[in-house]
Amino acid sequence: MFVSFEGIDGCGKSTQIEMFTKYLQSKGIEFVKVREPGGTKLGEKIRQLLISEEMISRSELLLFLASRAQLVEEVIKPALKEGKMVIADRFAHSSVAYQGCGRNLGVDVVKMLNDFATDHTYPDLVFYIDIPAEVAISRIRKEQRDRIEQEGLEFFEKVRLCYLQLCETDKSFVLIDGTKDMKTINMQIIKIFEGLYNV
Amino acid sequence: MFVSFEGIDGCGKSTQIEMFTKYLQSKGIEFVKVREPGGTKLGEKIRQLLISEEMISRSELLLFLASRAQLVEEVIKPALKEGKMVIADRFAHSSVAYQGCGRNLGVDVVKMLNDFATDHTYPDLVFYIDIPAEVAISRIRKEQRDRIEQEGLEFFEKVRLCYLQLCETDKSFVLIDGTKDMKTINMQIIKIFEGLYNV
Repeated sequence: MFVSFEGIDGCGKSTQIEMFTKYLQSKGIEFVKVREPGGTKLGEKIRQLLISEEMISRSELLLFLASRAQLVEEVIKPALKEGKMVIADRFAHSSVAYQGCGRNLGVDVVKMLNDFATDHTYPDLVFYIDIPAEVAISRIRKEQRDRIEQEGLEFFEKVRLCYLQLCETDKSFVLIDGTKDMKTINMQIIKIFEGLYNV
Repeated sequence: MFVSFEGIDGCGKSTQIEMFTKYLQSKGIEFVKVREPGGTKLGEKIRQLLISEEMISRSELLLFLASRAQLVEEVIKPALKEGKMVIADRFAHSSVAYQGCGRNLGVDVVKMLNDFATDHTYPDLVFYIDIPAEVAISRIRKEQRDRIEQEGLEFFEKVRLCYLQLCETDKSFVLIDGTKDMKTINMQIIKIFEGLYNV
């Protein structure tokens, strides 16, 4: 089983993933945690390029996809084959929202490129943690922002709208209100998970 | 005007490009020379990853494409706009031959990905320098081979066959016999160039 966490920067994904994986540990459920971009030797080197180098949008997307392809073959497919859960801090839908909408490359072309990069490997369940763009920007400290996080309000609003549209059209998506306190969100995520998979 | 040189490793591309650009200089024709992967700050960093890191074929292709997209926007399009010639040491067709055929990713999917990466920017003229795969392998000294050049005879035969097919289907391709001596090849290239463009 493959679960990803999505949302705009500052939505609280990382905290929720930490709380959720602690819950999995307490239940004795084996899992592999991955992050994007990165998660492999090649992917971490690509991550460095994405954070630090200036580049056009199409190159940015193609680098995310190169990292993703390697992650799928090297980590995700083998873990799923061994019957382990995979927990992803961002996956293919981040590209749809960030590059497809945020960078205006188009949702359809990004979906098609994702199909190639992932070899049609997608999460069974996507927890999308929703917060308004203004909240996101106020949460990320200015001095700590990387190249993509430096984008303005308009960019994050486009990305958020795209995620909200995916919630309506993609059956694997579950919308979580990210403005609630983290304990409440954690409880909700666990309840949904247990309900769906009879844990 | 955009001219690329293609062929399997060891075919003599670099020598021919050097001779051809000297000819262009002697005629006072302004040009920009680019190489793939590389040619931009981002591209040269991607080149390092491609030469040294282990990776799956899909990631390899996506990295080539990321480098290509940046090269097109940063160098090729501006040069063409300024009325300069662009001379490319490998371009999009290398991916068709090497990844599409050599790595078995499929010609059609690579062409579609090239369309995205290059924003449909393709050479007007492609000099394909043809040599048998055995000749290619004997020409590249073992100790100097990079990750891709280490491939065996079967790989280079697949790549060559793909190039030969492109010669039949792609109107921009011109087949050059790379087994002839380099002076003869140079003369032929110049003759074709002058004939086509009334230099």
